Amino acid sequence: MAGGVGSRFWPLSTPEYPKQFIDILGCGRTMIQMTVDRFKGLCRPENLWVVTNRSYVETVRTQLPQILPDHILAEPAARNTAPCIAWACWSIRNEDPDANVVVTPSDAVVMDPVEFRRVISNALQFTADKEAVVTIGIKPSRPETGYGYVETGTGAGGEILSVSEFKEKPDIDTARKYLEKGNYLWNAGIFVWNVKTITSLISSYKPGIAKDMDEIISTGDVETIFPACEKISIDFAVMEPASKEGKVFTHPADFGWSDLGNWASLHDKLPKDSDSNAAVGQVSFHDCKDCIVHAEDARKVVLQGLEGYIVSEKNGCILVCRRSEEQRIREFSK
Amino acid sequence: MAGGVGSRFWPLSTPEYPKQFIDILGCGRTMIQMTVDRFKGLCRPENLWVVTNRSYVETVRTQLPQILPDHILAEPAARNTAPCIAWACWSIRNEDPDANVVVTPSDAVVMDPVEFRRVISNALQFTADKEAVVTIGIKPSRPETGYGYVETGTGAGGEILSVSEFKEKPDIDTARKYLEKGNYLWNAGIFVWNVKTITSLISSYKPGIAKDMDEIISTGDVETIFPACEKISIDFAVMEPASKEGKVFTHPADFGWSDLGNWASLHDKLPKDSDSNAAVGQVSFHDCKDCIVHAEDARKVVLQGLEGYIVSEKNGCILVCRRSEEQRIREFSK
Repeated sequence: MAGGVGSRFWPLSTPEYPKQFIDILGCGRTMIQMTVDRFKGLCRPENLWVVTNRSYVETVRTQLPQILPDHILAEPAARNTAPCIAWACWSIRNEDPDANVVVTPSDAVVMDPVEFRRVISNALQFTADKEAVVTIGIKPSRPETGYGYVETGTGAGGEILSVSEFKEKPDIDTARKYLEKGNYLWNAGIFVWNVKTITSLISSYKPGIAKDMDEIISTGDVETIFPACEKISIDFAVMEPASKEGKVFTHPADFGWSDLGNWASLHDKLPKDSDSNAAVGQVSFHDCKDCIVHAEDARKVVLQGLEGYIVSEKNGCILVCRRSEEQRIREFSK
Repeated sequence: MAGGVGSRFWPLSTPEYPKQFIDILGCGRTMIQMTVDRFKGLCRPENLWVVTNRSYVETVRTQLPQILPDHILAEPAARNTAPCIAWACWSIRNEDPDANVVVTPSDAVVMDPVEFRRVISNALQFTADKEAVVTIGIKPSRPETGYGYVETGTGAGGEILSVSEFKEKPDIDTARKYLEKGNYLWNAGIFVWNVKTITSLISSYKPGIAKDMDEIISTGDVETIFPACEKISIDFAVMEPASKEGKVFTHPADFGWSDLGNWASLHDKLPKDSDSNAAVGQVSFHDCKDCIVHAEDARKVVLQGLEGYIVSEKNGCILVCRRSEEQRIREFSK
C-alpha cells in the first residue's frame, strides 16, 4: 500500500512526494524501497504488487523497476484501505487462486529485517490452509497514543495468539493500562492471509465492495467503479467483524518497527550525538540539544542555540519548528 | 573600495562572494551597485574607479558594466586602505591632475541618496581648491562601539567643521560620553579631496608608498610592487597626521548611513513586522520575535517559535544562530 499523502514531514514530504518515496533515514533507500528490500527471500519480485494513487505511478516505476508494470495498481481516488486491499487481492487471485498474501504499508521502518522475515514466514505458514487472518502485533515499548492496539487472547500454535479485540488509538491513561496488563500489542497494519480467506471475508462483510471488485476484474473499468467504492478501512470492514468470529490472530513481533508517523519517532530511530541531536545531512550543532534535522539537499547546515527543534530542508523549502509544535506543520505547509 | 572579504554574514556572504557583491537588503541591487547608483549626477560613469582584489574583477565587471575596464584596479594582495587609495588616486591623477575625488567603501547603506549627494557636493566644493581633506561624519544615533569617531572643532565654512582628533573604536562608556558631549561623529570612511592634496599628503607622510605608486604608474608592474607596499590604513597613514596639521575637516551628515557590519545593523535597516521580525525572502513567521532572516534563494521558509535568532540561507547552506552569538558566525562558517 503506497497511496498515502501527508505533509507531517513538510518540507521533506509533500503531496507531490509523500513519505513512502523519501529517503527519510538518510540511508540511500526510500521507505518503499526498504519495504520491498525486506521481502527478499520471502517473495519473488514478479509476485510483488503495489497499490498507489495514479499520480505516483511514475515514481513507483522509477524507484521499484523490478515490479511488473501491470502489478502497479493505480487508484483514481483514495477510498481508504478496504477497497485498496480488495483490489490487490482480487487481482492476485486472478493470477493465483491459492496465493498467500502479505499486506504492508510502504512507509514504516523495520530495524531488524531478519526477524521480520522469520515472523512473516511463521504467519504465512499459519494462514496458508485455514480461514484465518494474522495481523502482526508489535510489542509496545511505551504507552503510545498514536497507534491502534490488539488485545491478545489464548495461544493458537507456535508464537501465534488469538485476538480478542481491536482497540482504536487510546488516550494516555488507557495506553498506560494496556502496557501494564501486558496482553496488548500495537496494530502495525501488516496483515497475512491466503487470498481465498480475504476475498471470502470481504464478500461476507462487504458484499458491495466484493461486487465492485468482481466488476473491475471482469470489465477493467477501474476509472468508474473504484471511486464509487465504499470508503472504509480494512480494520472496520474486515478485522473487527472477523475477530468477533474468532478468525483473527496475531503474531507478536519485536523487529524494531516504527511507522515513522511523526518527527519524534524519526528522532527515536536515528543515531544521536551526546546532546541527543539527530541529523540526516551535513549538519553541525553548536549549543544544541534534542534537535532533529533532515537536510539532505543542503550543502551545509550550521545550527546554534536550538533546544528541542525540528529543522527540515528540501527542494528549496526550510522549516524550523519547536518539536512540541510539530502537529502544526501541516498547517504551516499550506 | 571593494576589496573586503568577510564571513560575518555567512552563508549570505563568503570569501568567494563578499558582502559588497550581495543584495543584502533584498532590493534587487547589490551593495556595490547601490554605492555606484548614489553617485548618479555627481560623477560620470567614465570617471568611476573600483579597487578590488583581483579575484573579484569578473564580479565587478558583471555587476558594474558601466565601469571602464582599465578603471578596475585589481590588487594582487590586500594591503589595507592606504595603498588601495593611493593606487586609485595616482591612477586618477595620471588621467586628470585636477580631479576632485570621493573615496567610499562599497558595502555601506545610505537610506537617503538625495541628502548624500547634497553633502558630497558641499564637500567637493570645499576641497576643490584647498589642501584639505573632508571625512564625512555621521551624526551618531546610539553609543556605537563598532565605529571610529571624529571629534569636531570649529566651523570652517558652511556646514563643514574642523576635526580636532580621530578616535578609534571606543568602549561603551566612552561611546556614551561622546554621544552626551555632542561634538563627536562616526567616521564613515567616506573621504573627499582633490587629487593634488591626497598625493601630496601621502608623499609627505608615507614617502615609501608614494615611491611605490610612482613606480607602478611608470612601469605598470603592480604584481611585484603592490604586495610589497606598506600595509597601513588611510586613517593612520594620512588622516591622523594631517589632522594634527589642521588639514582635516568633516561634513556632519544624516543620510541614513550604516556600514551593515553585522546582523543587528541589517535588522535595524530592514522593515519589520509587529513582532520585530525582519525578512528578505519568502518567510512566514509563527510565534517568532526579533528575528532576522535572509533567504533569497529559498522558495519558502517557515519559522516557528524562534525569539532573537538569525536565519540565513544561501547557495545550499543554512545557518540558524542566536543573535547574541553572531560574533561566532565566522568560526561556524569554517
